Amino acid sequence: MSREARFRQIAVELGYDFDGEIKVGGNYAPLVVHDDLIYISGQIPRVGDTVVIQGAVGKDVSLMQGQLAAKVCIMRAVALLLRQFETLDRVRKILSINVYVQSADGFTQQSEVSDGASEVLYSIFGEAGVHARTSVGVFQLPKNAPVEISLVVATA
Amino acid sequence: MSREARFRQIAVELGYDFDGEIKVGGNYAPLVVHDDLIYISGQIPRVGDTVVIQGAVGKDVSLMQGQLAAKVCIMRAVALLLRQFETLDRVRKILSINVYVQSADGFTQQSEVSDGASEVLYSIFGEAGVHARTSVGVFQLPKNAPVEISLVVATA
Amino acid sequence: MSREARFRQIAVELGYDFDGEIKVGGNYAPLVVHDDLIYISGQIPRVGDTVVIQGAVGKDVSLMQGQLAAKVCIMRAVALLLRQFETLDRVRKILSINVYVQSADGFTQQSEVSDGASEVLYSIFGEAGVHARTSVGVFQLPKNAPVEISLVVATA
Repeated sequence: MSREARFRQIAVELGYDFDGEIKVGGNYAPLVVHDDLIYISGQIPRVGDTVVIQGAVGKDVSLMQGQLAAKVCIMRAVALLLRQFETLDRVRKILSINVYVQSADGFTQQSEVSDGASEVLYSIFGEAGVHARTSVGVFQLPKNAPVEISLVVATA
Repeated sequence: MSREARFRQIAVELGYDFDGEIKVGGNYAPLVVHDDLIYISGQIPRVGDTVVIQGAVGKDVSLMQGQLAAKVCIMRAVALLLRQFETLDRVRKILSINVYVQSADGFTQQSEVSDGASEVLYSIFGEAGVHARTSVGVFQLPKNAPVEISLVVATA
Repeated sequence: MSREARFRQIAVELGYDFDGEIKVGGNYAPLVVHDDLIYISGQIPRVGDTVVIQGAVGKDVSLMQGQLAAKVCIMRAVALLLRQFETLDRVRKILSINVYVQSADGFTQQSEVSDGASEVLYSIFGEAGVHARTSVGVFQLPKNAPVEISLVVATA
């Protein structure tokens, strides 16, 4: 199965449509390409106009919902790559992801939340999707998102 | 108008002088150049010895003051680039910025705070200043700064 | 003294053994090499199965213990580099480190915590260890770690 087909299959499994426009406000870009490096802006679990899961993980949001949010964030990032290149075959390696988890007091399973994102990347890209990762628990995120993920990607 | 002229004009508008020495403590550097990549250390809104705005955005610090703090952070970063190269023409592209906002409980407008920084970058560099961006709300920042910003920049 | 000898000397001083397996869970890697760049995943002060210092700096964990935790994080990262290349001579430059400090309310000495890590890098690598640095205070960290550090490194 192609990377694009796996992307679409995961979108169906999650029940969200990532084909719509991905809105970006202000004087910044959803992604920036420099030589063979791509910097992708922090993605929150927004589909269309709606942040589909909101709140702090460990309080308003369960671990499982947090993992789902991480999957939606990473699917948005992959959708941006697909829009940029019209194929996912140009992705040579996912180099690094930063996962910011809006965390309730005492919640320490940030790595487990991130596993949702890592799993999607591996499903779509296989070995090329195995990345360095940093997971931290932050106090607040834009629009009360439970998770935000930024990436650095290498292209072929 | 040259990039340097726009930089100086914004400094006048903000009412701060970025020509003084930018202090860095410890065994690290304000910026590191590697081939055509520049990594700039996290900048807080310090002018000379003073962190000019302090506290958590959404409590001690208003959104507008937070945006001002973000502008001061990014002006410091641009001042570092100017000192390194003696011109801003060597900046080929602002690749990525990370904006950390010391946030009060319930404050979710981190992106709006970051807009202050993005606006300055666009004013000085135009299209070359359009960057990938990640904004998160952290619990505390060094010296009680409301905002801290790090960057990756590509040089010509 | 060689870089490896200084690394081993610091390990003895800290009283921890960094020769054991460094465990990584999930579909991500402890480090990813791309051309001459290395992205190292966020390291917490874990030795073997144990996070050797736990809690928030400024409450459960003193500044000095936080600095020690930062040293253990960075020693893990150096151990990963040593394992990858079987020598530390391949490290051309430590480009950038991100230091996340799990911070108590009102604790603003994140930079001082990071100094522990910067000092170790300078001790081992000299000028090649002088890096860009971003220090922030986060709300929670995985496994209740007081510090987490990620790095970007350039190889020869």
